[in-house]
Amino acid sequence: MRGAVLHGPGDVRVEERRDPEIVEPTDAIIRLTATCICGSDLWSYRGLEETAEAAPMGHEYVGVVEEVGPEVTRVRPGQFVVGSFWASDNTCEICRAGYQSGCVNRVLMGSIGTQAQLARIPHADGTLVATPGTPDPDIVPSLLAASDVLGTGWFGAVAAAVEPGKTVVVVGDGAVGLCAVLAAGRLGAERIVAMTRHAPRQELARAFGATDIVAERGDEGVARIMELTNGLGAHSAIEAVGTQESMLQAIRSTRPGGHVGFIGYAHDVALPGDELFFSLVHLHGGPAPVRQYLPHLIDLIWNREIDPGRVFDMTLPLDEAAEGYRAMNERRAVKVLLTP
Amino acid sequence: MRGAVLHGPGDVRVEERRDPEIVEPTDAIIRLTATCICGSDLWSYRGLEETAEAAPMGHEYVGVVEEVGPEVTRVRPGQFVVGSFWASDNTCEICRAGYQSGCVNRVLMGSIGTQAQLARIPHADGTLVATPGTPDPDIVPSLLAASDVLGTGWFGAVAAAVEPGKTVVVVGDGAVGLCAVLAAGRLGAERIVAMTRHAPRQELARAFGATDIVAERGDEGVARIMELTNGLGAHSAIEAVGTQESMLQAIRSTRPGGHVGFIGYAHDVALPGDELFFSLVHLHGGPAPVRQYLPHLIDLIWNREIDPGRVFDMTLPLDEAAEGYRAMNERRAVKVLLTP
Repeated sequence: MRGAVLHGPGDVRVEERRDPEIVEPTDAIIRLTATCICGSDLWSYRGLEETAEAAPMGHEYVGVVEEVGPEVTRVRPGQFVVGSFWASDNTCEICRAGYQSGCVNRVLMGSIGTQAQLARIPHADGTLVATPGTPDPDIVPSLLAASDVLGTGWFGAVAAAVEPGKTVVVVGDGAVGLCAVLAAGRLGAERIVAMTRHAPRQELARAFGATDIVAERGDEGVARIMELTNGLGAHSAIEAVGTQESMLQAIRSTRPGGHVGFIGYAHDVALPGDELFFSLVHLHGGPAPVRQYLPHLIDLIWNREIDPGRVFDMTLPLDEAAEGYRAMNERRAVKVLLTP
Repeated sequence: MRGAVLHGPGDVRVEERRDPEIVEPTDAIIRLTATCICGSDLWSYRGLEETAEAAPMGHEYVGVVEEVGPEVTRVRPGQFVVGSFWASDNTCEICRAGYQSGCVNRVLMGSIGTQAQLARIPHADGTLVATPGTPDPDIVPSLLAASDVLGTGWFGAVAAAVEPGKTVVVVGDGAVGLCAVLAAGRLGAERIVAMTRHAPRQELARAFGATDIVAERGDEGVARIMELTNGLGAHSAIEAVGTQESMLQAIRSTRPGGHVGFIGYAHDVALPGDELFFSLVHLHGGPAPVRQYLPHLIDLIWNREIDPGRVFDMTLPLDEAAEGYRAMNERRAVKVLLTP
C-alpha cells in the first residue's frame, strides 16, 4: 500500500509500505476513504519533536472495514467507520469514566500512521463507531473532522464547562480552535469570542457561531476580553495552541471560578504556580477522549446539523501529501484532506 | 491595643498598635476572642516572601462585634462572628458565583493583621457570619479553624470533586491538610489516604477520617498510591503544601479524568505543560472562598458534628506570639491558638 513517512524535518514522502495485517484478535483492518494532516503533525515535521528514523504519519481516519480479528464482535466488514487518534478498549475503568484517551490499553494511532491506504485499528470494538450506512460523499470531510479536530474542540468546550448563558473565549484559530467555536455554539454559549487576526479564519469562525472577533494577542488581547466582560473576564476559555503565551492568554482571560479547557498540545509550557493559584480558574485538558463524543458527533453530522468539514480548505491525493504539509506549515491552508 | 508585628525574618513582636476605627461605612470593629498563626504566615516569617518594614500579622479571627459603620445592616454589636481571610462584599457577580476570594472589592485581612485585640473588618455584612449565640468556650477553637484552615481544606475537597465512593489522597499534613481529610470524610469519600510520616499527625488524620496512611514521599509515595488504587491512581488528590514536589506528587497520584484540588499557597512552582496535558486531570485551587462554606461549617461545629479545633495543639497568650511562631517554624506545633 501507499503511505506517508517522515524521514526527517520537512521530508515527508509517500512510499510503498507493507499492507497491515491482523496482529491481535481484537484488531480490524480498514481501507481509508479519507485521511488528513493535523496541526500536531507539524511539530515533528518541523523537527521540534523527536521521531523515529522513518516515522509513519497520520492519526485521523474514516474508512470501510476490510477484515476483523476473531474476537471482534461489534464491527463488521463493509461498515463505514470513524475512530479517534487513540485506540481504546472502551471497557476499562478509565474508559467507562469517559476518558478513553487515558485507556489503560490505549494505542496511539500516530504510531501506526493513517496517512495511508490501509490501517490496522487496535481494539476495534472499542475504538470504531459505525455510521448508520454509507455516507454521502459531501459529509465525509465532516466525519473525518470528528475523528480528531471536532472531537478535540468539543472536549475543549466541555472541559471549559461551556453552557447556556456563558461567555466563551477561544484562543487559537487552527482547525481545532475553529471546531471549538462550533462546539461552544452547540453547547449553548451566549457569546463566543474568537481570537484571530486572519480574515478567512475570522469568516469561518463567524460561520461556526462566533459572535465577536478579537484580533489582538497577549496582554492586549486580554485587555480586549476584559473590556468585553465588564472587567471580570470570560466564564470559559478554550486554549487550542499549546504555547506558554496562549496558555497564559487563556488563563488571564478567565474570571475567578471560571474554566479553562486546554487542548493545544503543550510544548515548552511551564505554568507559574502563583499565577495559577491566584487566578482561581479551573484547568482541564489534554488529549481529547474523542471516542466519548463520536456517537453524538456522528449523529449531528449525519443529520446535517453541523458542517465541521468546512475546516478543510485544501484536498490533495495522498501521493501529494508533501505539498499538503508545506501548505499547512506555511499557513496557506487551515487543514488538508488527503484522498488515498 | 496589643498586636503582633513582623519586623524582619524571625522577628515577631507583640507591641502597642493604634486601635482600629471605622474607615468605610461598611466596616465593623470586632474584639477578638481568639486568633491564631497560619502556616502561610511562616513564608514571610522565614523571609521567603517580601513584606512591609513593620507588617501587622494574622488573618484568622473570631470575636464579638464592638461597633459597625452606618451602612452595616446584617451584623450588630454584641454578636459573635466568624469571618474569612478575605473580606468580600458577597454581592458582586464573582461572590454570587461562590468565589468570594475573588470578590471584585476584596480586602486581604493579612494586610490588617488579626493577631491583635481588635480588628477592622471591611465589608462587614458580606464578610462576617454570626453564630446562633455566644459559643461555649470548648467550640471556640473549631469556629476559629473555620475562619481559614477548615474552610480551606473544605474548598480543597470540593475542588478535588470529592464525593461518595471516591478514593482521595491528601498531600500535606499541616492543619489545612488535616482539615482536608476531615472535609473529604464529610463529603462522603470512601477511602482517604493521608500522606504523612509524623506519628501525631497520622493519629489526628485517622481521628479525622483517614482510612490509610502513606509515609513515603515523591516518586515512592506515588508508587504506593498506585498500589492502593489498582494501578489507576486516586479519583481525587488534595494538595496542601504549595511546593513543586507536592504539586507533582498530587498530579501523579491522580488517574486520568480525576481531580486535583490545590490549596497550598504555591511558591516557586512551575507546572510542566506536557505532563499536565497527558495527566488528563482537572486542576482547581487557589485562595479558598471560605465565606461560601462558613454557614454550613458553623452549623456542623455548633451541632458538634465536627471538631476541627483539634488541629490546635498549642495555646498561648497573644503576648507570647513569638514563641508560637518558633514552635510552628520548628514543627513542634501543628497550629498555635493565641488568646488576646
